[in-house]
Amino acid sequence: MLIPIILSGGAGTRLWPVSREGHPKPFIELADGETLLHKTYRRAASILDAVEEAPREILTVTNRDHYFLSKDEFARAGLEGRYRGTYLLEPVGRNTAAAVALAAHAVAERYGPEALLLILPADHLIQDEAAFRRAVAHAAELARQRRLVTFGIVPDRPETGYGYIEASEALGPGRTVVRFVEKPSLERAEAYLAAGNFYWNAGMFCFQAGFLLEQMARHAPEVAEAAALCWENTRGRMTPQTSMIELDAERFAGIPEISIDYALMERSDAVAVVPAEFGWSDIGSWCALSALVPADAAGNRAKGQAIFLDSRDTYVHSEDRLVAALGVEGLVIVDTPDALLVTHRDKAQDVKKVVAQLKERDHETYKLHRTVVRPWGSYTVLEEGPGFKIKRIEVKPGASLSLQMHHHRSEHWIVVRGMAKIVNGERTCYVRPNESTYIPAGCKHRLENPGVLDLVMIEVQCGEYLGEDDIVRFDDVYGRG
Amino acid sequence: MLIPIILSGGAGTRLWPVSREGHPKPFIELADGETLLHKTYRRAASILDAVEEAPREILTVTNRDHYFLSKDEFARAGLEGRYRGTYLLEPVGRNTAAAVALAAHAVAERYGPEALLLILPADHLIQDEAAFRRAVAHAAELARQRRLVTFGIVPDRPETGYGYIEASEALGPGRTVVRFVEKPSLERAEAYLAAGNFYWNAGMFCFQAGFLLEQMARHAPEVAEAAALCWENTRGRMTPQTSMIELDAERFAGIPEISIDYALMERSDAVAVVPAEFGWSDIGSWCALSALVPADAAGNRAKGQAIFLDSRDTYVHSEDRLVAALGVEGLVIVDTPDALLVTHRDKAQDVKKVVAQLKERDHETYKLHRTVVRPWGSYTVLEEGPGFKIKRIEVKPGASLSLQMHHHRSEHWIVVRGMAKIVNGERTCYVRPNESTYIPAGCKHRLENPGVLDLVMIEVQCGEYLGEDDIVRFDDVYGRG
Repeated sequence: MLIPIILSGGAGTRLWPVSREGHPKPFIELADGETLLHKTYRRAASILDAVEEAPREILTVTNRDHYFLSKDEFARAGLEGRYRGTYLLEPVGRNTAAAVALAAHAVAERYGPEALLLILPADHLIQDEAAFRRAVAHAAELARQRRLVTFGIVPDRPETGYGYIEASEALGPGRTVVRFVEKPSLERAEAYLAAGNFYWNAGMFCFQAGFLLEQMARHAPEVAEAAALCWENTRGRMTPQTSMIELDAERFAGIPEISIDYALMERSDAVAVVPAEFGWSDIGSWCALSALVPADAAGNRAKGQAIFLDSRDTYVHSEDRLVAALGVEGLVIVDTPDALLVTHRDKAQDVKKVVAQLKERDHETYKLHRTVVRPWGSYTVLEEGPGFKIKRIEVKPGASLSLQMHHHRSEHWIVVRGMAKIVNGERTCYVRPNESTYIPAGCKHRLENPGVLDLVMIEVQCGEYLGEDDIVRFDDVYGRG
Repeated sequence: MLIPIILSGGAGTRLWPVSREGHPKPFIELADGETLLHKTYRRAASILDAVEEAPREILTVTNRDHYFLSKDEFARAGLEGRYRGTYLLEPVGRNTAAAVALAAHAVAERYGPEALLLILPADHLIQDEAAFRRAVAHAAELARQRRLVTFGIVPDRPETGYGYIEASEALGPGRTVVRFVEKPSLERAEAYLAAGNFYWNAGMFCFQAGFLLEQMARHAPEVAEAAALCWENTRGRMTPQTSMIELDAERFAGIPEISIDYALMERSDAVAVVPAEFGWSDIGSWCALSALVPADAAGNRAKGQAIFLDSRDTYVHSEDRLVAALGVEGLVIVDTPDALLVTHRDKAQDVKKVVAQLKERDHETYKLHRTVVRPWGSYTVLEEGPGFKIKRIEVKPGASLSLQMHHHRSEHWIVVRGMAKIVNGERTCYVRPNESTYIPAGCKHRLENPGVLDLVMIEVQCGEYLGEDDIVRFDDVYGRG
């Protein structure tokens, strides 16, 4: 019995401006059109296919703001109906110890203390899936023997950006662990590489739910107790049918914010490591992401429209604009509709400094994109001017926005694709492409896509105040107030 | 009698992506919000104020596509009503010899052969206007003595990007000219700087209309004859009241494409130079343009929203996006709504190579901006998708679009500012902010701004074909077919 636990937290600030607080790293699209979360879900599913007795459930621990986004990726990866997707929703981020502890409680509750958890970060890339499955089988074997199993990536370079695991003698298909080491200096990293018994700590683990909770109670009692209290207030929300469980907000906020490595792995003597070589990358910077795009003869790479002249080793990521790079070398140029990053490859790790500065200035580009994803679809602000705002609104088949009203703005809606069912005051009508309707300020209205194709609509708002907070919701199928 | 002649030609490809074929260098806005043409008009006007007997006329030679843009700049510079603005419109670009010859014909026709022409490129910057006026007074004095007078900029560095003028003995307030030299090597440029009798050729001239035509007939007879033939077919279009003269298209195209320097100045022995120090720049690259923006302590400069981190000597020009520069040095980053340039300062002269490549690929960003300026105002394409296109349309007070019809698209119009008068088939109506109207495909319509405020309207086009060429014009106040 093995349940993949997908940990989908963190903002991935090193991949700004594509990754943002409201649309973080697991959800960014790679050159092949898939997201990292999409790939992680498929990888988890392939593990379940290999483990016959599995309940075929995948548990995602993520922020509640990312519930619908995560569910969409689960569906896009083709898992819906074939695997059971369960979501444990965090009201705030509390690092990995809290997430893992609550996942262990949930799994123990549903499948008993001996069920195995396979902890997988949502935003890593693994190239060799067969090798990954073999490593998981080895980890599961050790985990059943009451071990906290980590995956140790065999290093191929003296990387200073990762923590290392020092291994000792053989232990079944793995090795015992001497200690965890923090990100080392280059000199030390070179020594580790030469020594041969050091591995990168990839943040992937396998253990029994009950054993994890026991170990946590011994080595990190504060975390264990706070997590148990939180679970106490949450467990009632889980029935055999539930697929979405909101963690108790007050109690969850009381759990110490600490990583599972610090809280437990570095302290326990029951840790084992499974050495692994499966083409792992944490896609920790634009350099790692750009490496996924093929280079031309001069080392230039592009996702989107680019022209390179007298330029070398330069990466262009552009969503819809033409980018011309002239006489430059070793640059990373990342263009989005509202923010542009130009950095040198060697500084790509410092992108988080830019985000910190944006956050300090409260510039909304650290958080939101111009396209905002909602449970029912998305909207994109095309332009704002004095007294007006223009949005493109896309509604998924069968989806519907809340019944709502605005005090200060009227809305002109023009359907350009699909079919809209519109409640406009007392009237309900169907609006087809090239047809329009008008929603006066103060009028209750609802937009719905009754069809099987995406609905695309242009909205022109007019009014003295056009903030998103001028909305009164009367009834929302997604439970928003 | 002195008439400033503003030569407004050329695409200014070294300032792409801001300067484009459809919106070239004279029309780009500097950090102070003024265009180079605006400044040139004001400078020309200050010359007229200083020369008492002047007819107070300013003649602009430009492409006919830029007539309305130029007239707008004339008005913005506050000249309308106070100075007479006349426009000689070229059907195609034919370099400066043709433009100067036809300007001389036009001036001779209106004011006689002794009237002076002061030739000013539309896209140069002059910081010291008082020194400029003194230099013009000296040039006019020599021009009245039947000299072709050039302005020689006293060099302050061994510039290899300009041609030089070698001067000899004193001649009144100027000097005689030995020869014109092409753009030199650095070594030669250094020698010229040291010699002290070499000046930069700024492409500004002063001469009598009749004397210029005499000299041209002697030294560049092919240009002179073809220009005379063109004028023969054009002169009938000029009356004492005319302010806009379209040059005969067929004959104009027959004039050899050559600069006034090559065709005449380098050949004539009647040339004189007035040495001048008036803070001249031809704004020939992004480096020159960036120098107009104040730098911070690290040498970074920004027009628009920018964040600099660990960066030096970098220039950011952004129209509406946030630009973050991280760990870069000596870059020029120019961001526009549809194209982005990232180049090293030292390569900024090669931007024209990018434009050449775009032209080869027929990528429209070499030519057009997303905002297209029209005689009646402008339109901006906000978004295009399958089956729809969204524009913001701005119409100047009192202006009107042609009566027109589209075969393949319907249009939804929503007024967001000002007042629209709309002819829609047989009906005429007034549409106010937050009101809309619908123009079905096949229906004759006209949009007019009858008010005194700018009209701003959002247009959502729907249809199978949305090209700009699906337009039948029935009646156009601007004489377009």
